[in-house]
Amino acid sequence: MNITLSEAEQIVAAAKQKAADINTKMDICVVDSGANLVAFARMDGAWIGSVDIAIKKARTAAWFMMDTKSLSPLVQPGESLFQIEASNGGLITFPGGVALKRDGEVIGAIGVSGSTVEDDHTVATAGASVL
Amino acid sequence: MNITLSEAEQIVAAAKQKAADINTKMDICVVDSGANLVAFARMDGAWIGSVDIAIKKARTAAWFMMDTKSLSPLVQPGESLFQIEASNGGLITFPGGVALKRDGEVIGAIGVSGSTVEDDHTVATAGASVL
Amino acid sequence: MNITLSEAEQIVAAAKQKAADINTKMDICVVDSGANLVAFARMDGAWIGSVDIAIKKARTAAWFMMDTKSLSPLVQPGESLFQIEASNGGLITFPGGVALKRDGEVIGAIGVSGSTVEDDHTVATAGASVL
Amino acid sequence: MNITLSEAEQIVAAAKQKAADINTKMDICVVDSGANLVAFARMDGAWIGSVDIAIKKARTAAWFMMDTKSLSPLVQPGESLFQIEASNGGLITFPGGVALKRDGEVIGAIGVSGSTVEDDHTVATAGASVL
Repeated sequence: MNITLSEAEQIVAAAKQKAADINTKMDICVVDSGANLVAFARMDGAWIGSVDIAIKKARTAAWFMMDTKSLSPLVQPGESLFQIEASNGGLITFPGGVALKRDGEVIGAIGVSGSTVEDDHTVATAGASVL
Repeated sequence: MNITLSEAEQIVAAAKQKAADINTKMDICVVDSGANLVAFARMDGAWIGSVDIAIKKARTAAWFMMDTKSLSPLVQPGESLFQIEASNGGLITFPGGVALKRDGEVIGAIGVSGSTVEDDHTVATAGASVL
Repeated sequence: MNITLSEAEQIVAAAKQKAADINTKMDICVVDSGANLVAFARMDGAWIGSVDIAIKKARTAAWFMMDTKSLSPLVQPGESLFQIEASNGGLITFPGGVALKRDGEVIGAIGVSGSTVEDDHTVATAGASVL
Repeated sequence: MNITLSEAEQIVAAAKQKAADINTKMDICVVDSGANLVAFARMDGAWIGSVDIAIKKARTAAWFMMDTKSLSPLVQPGESLFQIEASNGGLITFPGGVALKRDGEVIGAIGVSGSTVEDDHTVATAGASVL
């Protein structure tokens, strides 16, 4: 089962609302379980450099079926996945990518970039809570 | 002057409506005048391979400030721009990318992919007509 | 609002002058607010490897609307943006990229590479001071 | 022997003048004999998509020590170099790249993009005539 565009649009809308509530400007991306783009929005004034980061956060979360923040400790120097970012045309392994699940199954992922990684994760979680 | 997210979302909505009206499933992308992503939507069941094509059509139209179908005759074997697609990380030079203008100035572009190139152009034009 | 070529050329000239004053040879790049190239100069004898670094510094500063040296502490192992360089086809996150502003708005960025990062930043700042 | 920055800047200035004389807006690039960037200028309002094309034209001319228009007939379907554009991260094989020579030796190349290929070649030639 995959996420629908209608669901993805509701997720983006919820993320935009949360971003505005905490006074940030975000790039927001939703991908399906195959890590392929479903919906994207760049809020006015959000960083252009975060377009690619939001997409890569969403894809990373979908590719590994976990939130990107779960990867952060594992990619540090000396840890088991050090330099995994060199794969898949570039991963982003800090917070802001959240797996989207229904009935325990991953049906896609959301990636958010544009503020601190804490804010990014907060907004991504707000989007994911729609499901 | 650049396109706003609100405008881009209205453009995507109009394109989705047109795509449904003519019984197609499309990938739809809107970029700003710097060819950077603003909004994207993949309709349920639309080709995954068209994600990148829709994005490249929009970027090509923004990069050259013209509809992609204007490029098609120029890129044929023996014509002046043959193999221009090798630039900019890949161009798409067939119909479906339409420059978005306000007061004669290019403020972004829409790219549509998922059906025949005629359908793609029709849907892109419907989106662009919102401005 | 975007930087003009005339402004970019004055910025490059000021950066070249500063580079000569401190006895260095630099690669100097100016991009617009969309991170697209406007002007570039490689001083005689400057490192060829710094061509790409100067461009990436300018693009990084434009993409995130901040000086690249603001990113340096955040991208260290264990810090919040560790490995962000895997995005956008490669970022440079050490000093030498400076956002160009007019009336508080980012209108582009300058990137300088060819000496120590302190020298690079000094030269970039001298260029940026033209505005 | 390689082109100097001072020479490259004079070449760019002459190309800009010619571009203005024939009422065009051009992206202009000069590379050295190693195909590495020396100088670049994007005239106000010139296509962003021509940034990469101007650079690739200059590099192609330097890599093969000939004007890009010499390659055009050889890259057509059925001809000997068909699809050579797939090499070197992308070549541009239509007019607008001109080898820069001194005493019969190639010391660099100029690439121009932004109008018809005839105009591009005219402007590149005007730049090259400085030497």
